[in-house]
Amino acid sequence: MTPKVKEILSWYGAQNPGVLTNLARILNHGRLGGTGKLVILPVDQGFEHGPARSFAPNPPAYDPRYHFELAIAAGCNAYAAPLGFIEAGAREFAGDIPLILKANDADVLRDDKDPVQALTASVDDALRLGCCAVGFTIYPGSAYEAEMYGQLREYAQEARDKGLAVVVWSYPRGSSLSKAGETAIDVIGYAAQIAAQLGAHIIKVKLPTDHIEQDAARKVYEAQKVPIATGAERVRHVVQCAFDGRRIVIFSGGAAVTDDDAFLAEIRDIHAGGGFGSIIGRNSFQRTREHALKLLGEVMDIYAG
Amino acid sequence: MTPKVKEILSWYGAQNPGVLTNLARILNHGRLGGTGKLVILPVDQGFEHGPARSFAPNPPAYDPRYHFELAIAAGCNAYAAPLGFIEAGAREFAGDIPLILKANDADVLRDDKDPVQALTASVDDALRLGCCAVGFTIYPGSAYEAEMYGQLREYAQEARDKGLAVVVWSYPRGSSLSKAGETAIDVIGYAAQIAAQLGAHIIKVKLPTDHIEQDAARKVYEAQKVPIATGAERVRHVVQCAFDGRRIVIFSGGAAVTDDDAFLAEIRDIHAGGGFGSIIGRNSFQRTREHALKLLGEVMDIYAG
Amino acid sequence: MTPKVKEILSWYGAQNPGVLTNLARILNHGRLGGTGKLVILPVDQGFEHGPARSFAPNPPAYDPRYHFELAIAAGCNAYAAPLGFIEAGAREFAGDIPLILKANDADVLRDDKDPVQALTASVDDALRLGCCAVGFTIYPGSAYEAEMYGQLREYAQEARDKGLAVVVWSYPRGSSLSKAGETAIDVIGYAAQIAAQLGAHIIKVKLPTDHIEQDAARKVYEAQKVPIATGAERVRHVVQCAFDGRRIVIFSGGAAVTDDDAFLAEIRDIHAGGGFGSIIGRNSFQRTREHALKLLGEVMDIYAG
Amino acid sequence: MTPKVKEILSWYGAQNPGVLTNLARILNHGRLGGTGKLVILPVDQGFEHGPARSFAPNPPAYDPRYHFELAIAAGCNAYAAPLGFIEAGAREFAGDIPLILKANDADVLRDDKDPVQALTASVDDALRLGCCAVGFTIYPGSAYEAEMYGQLREYAQEARDKGLAVVVWSYPRGSSLSKAGETAIDVIGYAAQIAAQLGAHIIKVKLPTDHIEQDAARKVYEAQKVPIATGAERVRHVVQCAFDGRRIVIFSGGAAVTDDDAFLAEIRDIHAGGGFGSIIGRNSFQRTREHALKLLGEVMDIYAG
Amino acid sequence: MTPKVKEILSWYGAQNPGVLTNLARILNHGRLGGTGKLVILPVDQGFEHGPARSFAPNPPAYDPRYHFELAIAAGCNAYAAPLGFIEAGAREFAGDIPLILKANDADVLRDDKDPVQALTASVDDALRLGCCAVGFTIYPGSAYEAEMYGQLREYAQEARDKGLAVVVWSYPRGSSLSKAGETAIDVIGYAAQIAAQLGAHIIKVKLPTDHIEQDAARKVYEAQKVPIATGAERVRHVVQCAFDGRRIVIFSGGAAVTDDDAFLAEIRDIHAGGGFGSIIGRNSFQRTREHALKLLGEVMDIYAG
Repeated sequence: MTPKVKEILSWYGAQNPGVLTNLARILNHGRLGGTGKLVILPVDQGFEHGPARSFAPNPPAYDPRYHFELAIAAGCNAYAAPLGFIEAGAREFAGDIPLILKANDADVLRDDKDPVQALTASVDDALRLGCCAVGFTIYPGSAYEAEMYGQLREYAQEARDKGLAVVVWSYPRGSSLSKAGETAIDVIGYAAQIAAQLGAHIIKVKLPTDHIEQDAARKVYEAQKVPIATGAERVRHVVQCAFDGRRIVIFSGGAAVTDDDAFLAEIRDIHAGGGFGSIIGRNSFQRTREHALKLLGEVMDIYAG
Repeated sequence: MTPKVKEILSWYGAQNPGVLTNLARILNHGRLGGTGKLVILPVDQGFEHGPARSFAPNPPAYDPRYHFELAIAAGCNAYAAPLGFIEAGAREFAGDIPLILKANDADVLRDDKDPVQALTASVDDALRLGCCAVGFTIYPGSAYEAEMYGQLREYAQEARDKGLAVVVWSYPRGSSLSKAGETAIDVIGYAAQIAAQLGAHIIKVKLPTDHIEQDAARKVYEAQKVPIATGAERVRHVVQCAFDGRRIVIFSGGAAVTDDDAFLAEIRDIHAGGGFGSIIGRNSFQRTREHALKLLGEVMDIYAG
Repeated sequence: MTPKVKEILSWYGAQNPGVLTNLARILNHGRLGGTGKLVILPVDQGFEHGPARSFAPNPPAYDPRYHFELAIAAGCNAYAAPLGFIEAGAREFAGDIPLILKANDADVLRDDKDPVQALTASVDDALRLGCCAVGFTIYPGSAYEAEMYGQLREYAQEARDKGLAVVVWSYPRGSSLSKAGETAIDVIGYAAQIAAQLGAHIIKVKLPTDHIEQDAARKVYEAQKVPIATGAERVRHVVQCAFDGRRIVIFSGGAAVTDDDAFLAEIRDIHAGGGFGSIIGRNSFQRTREHALKLLGEVMDIYAG
Repeated sequence: MTPKVKEILSWYGAQNPGVLTNLARILNHGRLGGTGKLVILPVDQGFEHGPARSFAPNPPAYDPRYHFELAIAAGCNAYAAPLGFIEAGAREFAGDIPLILKANDADVLRDDKDPVQALTASVDDALRLGCCAVGFTIYPGSAYEAEMYGQLREYAQEARDKGLAVVVWSYPRGSSLSKAGETAIDVIGYAAQIAAQLGAHIIKVKLPTDHIEQDAARKVYEAQKVPIATGAERVRHVVQCAFDGRRIVIFSGGAAVTDDDAFLAEIRDIHAGGGFGSIIGRNSFQRTREHALKLLGEVMDIYAG
Repeated sequence: MTPKVKEILSWYGAQNPGVLTNLARILNHGRLGGTGKLVILPVDQGFEHGPARSFAPNPPAYDPRYHFELAIAAGCNAYAAPLGFIEAGAREFAGDIPLILKANDADVLRDDKDPVQALTASVDDALRLGCCAVGFTIYPGSAYEAEMYGQLREYAQEARDKGLAVVVWSYPRGSSLSKAGETAIDVIGYAAQIAAQLGAHIIKVKLPTDHIEQDAARKVYEAQKVPIATGAERVRHVVQCAFDGRRIVIFSGGAAVTDDDAFLAEIRDIHAGGGFGSIIGRNSFQRTREHALKLLGEVMDIYAG
């Protein structure tokens, strides 16, 4: 156990040894194992966006085994996916990489201004499939947010009791927010705080812009001159919003990016701002395997630096 | 156990021996037993469309025993029906054919743009009636989709724990979809993916058209030149959307077809496209028994070919 | 046990001996005992329409004991009522007549185009009160139909497990149906089918008219020339819709009829059409006791004929 | 045990000895003990109307102990209140007077045409606090009536199983009723019937007016010449509507009345009409203690007469 | 145990020794221990208003340990916060100060005229984290009030059974209330009464204004000449509304106040009116640590006076 991982675990003093063990498994696995940094491969886009939009650009990715193999070959810390994808490789790749079972999901066949996630897997599913953690998405700002927070509360309590870590995707959405507001710096910081208060062990948010959505927040950002001009500053602020750096916060870039350099520039921002790492889905599996491995290697080089 | 069935079971590595045993029972039964292909007789139309619309064209079909006998005589792999119909023959035909208990149903007395299925049977009902599987319908695209996915999650977990297979009817419907969209190739592929991610062991979808419903999907189909011009290509694509062929996907043709040749042409498309078989309801029991047996025999000839 | 009752019980092969015993108790009780025909006295109108509308025409009927006594004196097969009425006589008349506990009810103080029934008694209530069956009303066509079907599913499973029979009042209603549609032949046949598929052991519907409500159904009735011109033909069709006569279907006439001859003509139609009997509420207890006994006697004469 | 109380208990033949014991405790307590008549002090107005509107006219009544003492001093049969008020005196006055725990309540901070009660106490709370009964309010006519009936069903079953009596406040309200309709004779009679059918042991309704709300009811009242011209006749009719006098029905007068004589005239009507007594809240605790004791004494004189 | 604390505990005669023990722990802790007065530090603003609005004015407050340390250093009776903040210090500060786990929370990303709180922690969480009490917010006046009251009922029953105290934040809000009405004297008094009736052991309300919101209440306040002109009178009235002073009622001032003198004037009003103390969030942690300690010391001087 490296001092860095020991330090991170010390922030989670209320958790039982089972949870700490599984957090350690994720932090100690793969090329970044022991550094306190994380790169996770998530593949829920088949459910969230549809299979052709997700996998047609790189057809081997239709096969669920592809993603296990990619995450292992790239040296990711963990692989996260919905029930079906995890079931489709859990025996073959048992013990090869920490698994995160997404416990809720949504599709885009239903178009709703106030979206909700459906429950699609249980904590016991995670146990039987050998997972280290459950993943749960919330939509702060949706008319269904209270329902989703309540479901997360139940799942998180059961997961903690059973020694599993809890990873929360905190994605602001809903009729009270503008489109720009979904990635506004005040809103992303708020989303990180909500996930932390709900007991998340690992928090996943989108990279924020410098837009400020809420007037009441803007007054404070301006009065206190909170630095949010650069990407690194915004990452630093979001990390601060999650218990002043005492919770693991990782970032995604949102849409697929074709330009590797632009993508890596974002990674450098996250690293410079003290972010704990990245969750990289479409930018991994929509490239060819070779290209993805090269890009993930460069990402890990930055975080290891 | 044929190599083909062994191979298919190997795709379900996360399942307990009970589930594999029941999947094997279905795959090994009837005229197509051991081939890896399936023809299932489903009779939920009495509930879904009303008794006269379903059975008046062939009045012996009002009697629930008729369908057990038809499925057995035709050499189908399994017979699927709601609680009442299964109860009405479960003792008399005990052990004669694998049974699939439909666990939810809807009627057309209620007209709703966003339909929902009512829960009509339990997993324990399936056990007490000697069934091999539970059947569950979801309507991806309906305002109630999250509710139905959540119900399926609970049913599927209980069924798996109790060693039953899970068959999902994945029928896109709802106010966000056009009528043509319900059988659009992108939507059917998406519906197959959702069912697979929700943990279905056998997935039933309608034969897709070449219509593309969602703009975001169309861009990908065109950019990646996904072949969807012929029926066989579309079947192949849907199978690919269900974990690259590692889940059993079977097809229905939708409306009753009076022309046997047109019907058999569809079967040839499914076979050519790598589909795992058919679920044939109205085209079986709305023909005379003799005619139905002949037609089902021709269907099985194609799949056995 | 008469051959007729033996035959009827043989249709319920999936049921445990407890359910069969209670079905037999109902079929073997009273003046029609052993004939396979049934006349049941139901008194839920105090709840459903209000006490004065129900009982002011014959004030002794305000007393719950009146109905036990009437049902016993008339030789009915069973007496059905809500919790309060059953509780008010269950000890005094213990063992005197099979009891059916209505488990849900609605009132007309609330006016709703899509009605719903409230749960008003439990299966355990039925056991503790010595009942042979639970009664449950569904409104096919209501916006709440899925909720009611789901509740019936739970009640029916518990009742079956505990050896009680399940009697379903299947009353089509709701904003998708016209007033005439509530008793249309296609809709009543459909309602009988739904109740049968939901696992009802005894099905109660209203006498249908020759109106056809749904266009898709009309095409089939016309194409197949389903005979529905006379009352007897319509009864025969409804019985056919309930598993081709393999489920007990009984009929009510709807509104109170002052003309005994008109009422008895309906009974003759039911008998001629192969119906299993009648459930006669207001036409019993809104007449004087003497008159009611005479009329019920004439009804039983017809069924015994 | 007086013959009168024995007779009343005989009407509840379906209840276990625990329920009968608690009914007897209420019937045998206080100045009217053994007469079969009841005067109950209810104090839920602090919750239902607010504390100042309830207690400012007589400030000692802000103290929860005041009401225990008043009910005991006046010789009431029972004291009924929400959880907080009962908890605030249950130890100090343990065994001094039968207690009825109100299990649901509503406030007037929320203005709703279709009101609903919130669940505020449990059956186990009633047991741990030494109560003889739970009290439950329903609003027949509200859009939430089915929900409230269902909740009452669950509470009543648990209370019966645990040997507690069930007291139902049956208050018609909701968007389907006019203001006058809430106390119309047909509606109050209907409300008493619903409570009785739901299994209430003691039913509390408001004194009805001679207004008739529902056209279908008016026809019957007129055709059958149901006598409802005087207060006593209306009370008699309501008692008849509750199983022909075989359920305990008590009355409240509604709004606070400053004129003692007018108030006592109502009591005489209730007595003359065969009502079982009164539930007197604001007319007790909004008078001075001395005045209230005098008035309650006069009420009991009437009922004892 | 001081006579004052003994007296306060005597008001809670219905509670088990576990609840009394935890109430005593809170009353006996810190600088006001034994006086019967309370100052509690609550920090749920990170969830309720967002992290930057809450903590940017005093950035050390982003760290959850800051608040534990502040509450301990200031000699507060207890520290109250949501799950995440409590978990982040529960081990490090175990036994140092009584903890109150907020069990529900809301954010302002969702803008709703009728707000609702999401369930965010359980009673078992409070036990495993060593807390003395659970905290629960209700919004009397919201369309969701009945749902929240019902949730509080369940939480409070479980907490009582497990020996934990129950602290209720009673905040009137919703579409039936004007903005001024949220702090109107009649509404705040009503909110205190509702919390007390729901079984709260400690009640937290906002300082009321002299506005009267409801016409029916205004008539009584005027007719009875209830004194509400000064801050102290209004505090006295609210305390009276909570069982005539037999429930612990504490106050918050609402918005952050920059002027210490104005803030302390409010504290003097609370003390003069017989309030039991204060819950001071933003006015503590948005000042520098030094400033906050000085101000809290002055507050405690007043209450100790």
